[in-house]
Amino acid sequence: MYDSIIVGGGAAGMSAAIYLVRKKLEVLLISPDFGGQAAKSSEIENYLGFTKITGPELMQKFSEHIEALGVQSKMEEVEKITKTENGFLLETPSGQYETKSVLLASGKMPRHLDVPGEEEFSGRGVCYCAVCDGPLFHDKTVAVIGGGNSALDAALEIEKYAKKVYLVNLDEDFKGDEIRKDKVKASEKIELITNAKTKEFFGEGLLKGMKYIDKTGAVKELAIDGAFVEIGWTPATGLVEGLVELNDLKEIKIDLENRTSVPGIFAAGDVTDVREKQIIIAAGEGAKAALNAWSYIVLEHAKK
Amino acid sequence: MYDSIIVGGGAAGMSAAIYLVRKKLEVLLISPDFGGQAAKSSEIENYLGFTKITGPELMQKFSEHIEALGVQSKMEEVEKITKTENGFLLETPSGQYETKSVLLASGKMPRHLDVPGEEEFSGRGVCYCAVCDGPLFHDKTVAVIGGGNSALDAALEIEKYAKKVYLVNLDEDFKGDEIRKDKVKASEKIELITNAKTKEFFGEGLLKGMKYIDKTGAVKELAIDGAFVEIGWTPATGLVEGLVELNDLKEIKIDLENRTSVPGIFAAGDVTDVREKQIIIAAGEGAKAALNAWSYIVLEHAKK
Repeated sequence: MYDSIIVGGGAAGMSAAIYLVRKKLEVLLISPDFGGQAAKSSEIENYLGFTKITGPELMQKFSEHIEALGVQSKMEEVEKITKTENGFLLETPSGQYETKSVLLASGKMPRHLDVPGEEEFSGRGVCYCAVCDGPLFHDKTVAVIGGGNSALDAALEIEKYAKKVYLVNLDEDFKGDEIRKDKVKASEKIELITNAKTKEFFGEGLLKGMKYIDKTGAVKELAIDGAFVEIGWTPATGLVEGLVELNDLKEIKIDLENRTSVPGIFAAGDVTDVREKQIIIAAGEGAKAALNAWSYIVLEHAKK
Repeated sequence: MYDSIIVGGGAAGMSAAIYLVRKKLEVLLISPDFGGQAAKSSEIENYLGFTKITGPELMQKFSEHIEALGVQSKMEEVEKITKTENGFLLETPSGQYETKSVLLASGKMPRHLDVPGEEEFSGRGVCYCAVCDGPLFHDKTVAVIGGGNSALDAALEIEKYAKKVYLVNLDEDFKGDEIRKDKVKASEKIELITNAKTKEFFGEGLLKGMKYIDKTGAVKELAIDGAFVEIGWTPATGLVEGLVELNDLKEIKIDLENRTSVPGIFAAGDVTDVREKQIIIAAGEGAKAALNAWSYIVLEHAKK
C-alpha cells in the first residue's frame, strides 16, 4: 500500500512529489503526461528563479528534479478512484493501486468552442496548443480565437512561423497583461478582429476557413489554414465528480490546508478552486498539499 | 505615487515584484537585505526546478530575475507605515514614499533563547545563521540548540567545518524530516544531547561554554567555541503591529486573496498566518498577493 498517490504530473503534482518523497513516504505519481499546462507555454518569465525559459525547458527541469529524488511514476490515466475501508483504490488500464491518501493535481483541459466543424477539423487545422502545433503553420494564415493571456501568447508564438495571424476576440477588449497586449499591438503580422463570435469551421479534409458574426450581426469569412482555440480551460475533474465536492466551475473545493470534502483526499493547483492559475502558485500549493497529506498519513491514518 | 510598495526582499516579495512589474505597474521593493531566510539555507532540494542548490545561489537567481525585469529596489528598512487619504505613506531613513497599495513580505526573524549570556556573547560565539557563520568555526567545538529542520540543517552545515558538534534539544525527539535526521544520526562528528534545557552562555570576551539542565534536573556544562541558536522564528511584524490584524503568534492574518484587515494592504510569505513556511510556498503566495493587489489597484483604488 502506498502512503500517497499523486494524480497529475504538472507543477502542483511534481512539487507535491518532492515534498512527500523527502518525508521518506511511499509515493507514486500517475499521469498520462508530464509538465501540465506549463509545458505548453512558449515563454515563461514569471516563475521565480528562471528569468526567461520556455515551457518545455521548465518542464524538463521539473522532471529532472523529481527523477533525481527517485520519485516513482507511471505514465497512464487513472480511470477510477474508490474509497476502501483502509484508504483508496486507484485503477488504471494496467493495474490497481492501493493508497492511504490521494493528492489530486490533474490540472485543467482546454475549453472547446462547441461550434460546427470544430470536432471535424480538430487535428486537421483546429488546434489547442500553440507551442505544440504552431511550427506546423510555417508561412500560413492562422486564426487565434480568444481574448486572455493564453490567446495573446498563442498569437505571439504563432507569428514566429505564420505569415499572418488573425486574433479573433468575442469582446472589444483583451483581458491579458499589458506587456502582452503591447507586444501583440506592435506586431505587423497580427490583425485584431474584435466583437467577433466564432460561428463555424469549414474545409475539405483540411481546414480552409472560419465564419464569425460581427457586431452588426453580419456573417464574415476568414480564409485560414489553421485555427487555435484559446478560450480558457475546464478543470480535469471528470474522474472525481461525485467523489469530492466541486464548485460551480467544476473545480475541486479545498480548504486552507488543501483538504477536499473527503478525508484523505487532498488537491492542489489548477484543478482546485484557488482562483489564480499560475505555475509558481501551483508549485507552492503542491508543496502545501503534500505537507498536509503527510500530517494526515502520520497522524490520522495511523489511527485506523 | 507608486502603485505598490513591497516591504521585504525574500521569495514572497521578489515573486510579487515580478508579477506586479509584468502588469506594468509602478513598483518599489524596499528591504534591508535580499533573499530572506532562503539565503541562509545551506542546501535546498525542494524548490521545484532546482534539483540541488545552496541558499545563496538560489537567492542570486532570484535577484537576477527581478533585476532583468527592471524591478526598482531600495536596500533599507521601512520604519513607519501610515494610512493617508489616498493610500499609504512609508518612511525610511532616507525618505518618504507614497503608494496606492502595500504588500507586506517581511518574513521572519530568528527567535532568541533569552538566557543569561546570550546577548553578551552574540557575535562573539553565539550565532543565528549556520550558513553565514559556520565557516568561522573551522576545527572548533560548537553547539547547535534546537530540534527542528533548521537545527538539523545547522548541525549538518557546521560539521563540514567543526571538529565536534553537540546538537542540544529541549525534547527527546527531533521534529525535522526523516532524511535530515538520518544524516545527523549517521554523522560521526555530531553528538545528540536530548532533554536538555539551555541555561546560560559564559566566557571571557569570547564564548567559552554553555550550561544546560538535563532531565534529572542536574546542571551540566559544555566547553564550546560557538553556539548556534536554531529554535525557530518570530514573524517580522513589529512595523505593522496596531496597523493590521495579527494572530496569537504575531503573524499577519490574511484571507484567501492575501488581503489583510486593512484594504489596500496585502501580505504574503513567512510573515503571514499561512502555516507552512517554505520557499516555494512563499513564492506562490507572493504571486497570488500581487495578482490581488493588482485587482485592487485597477478596480478599488481607481474609484477613489
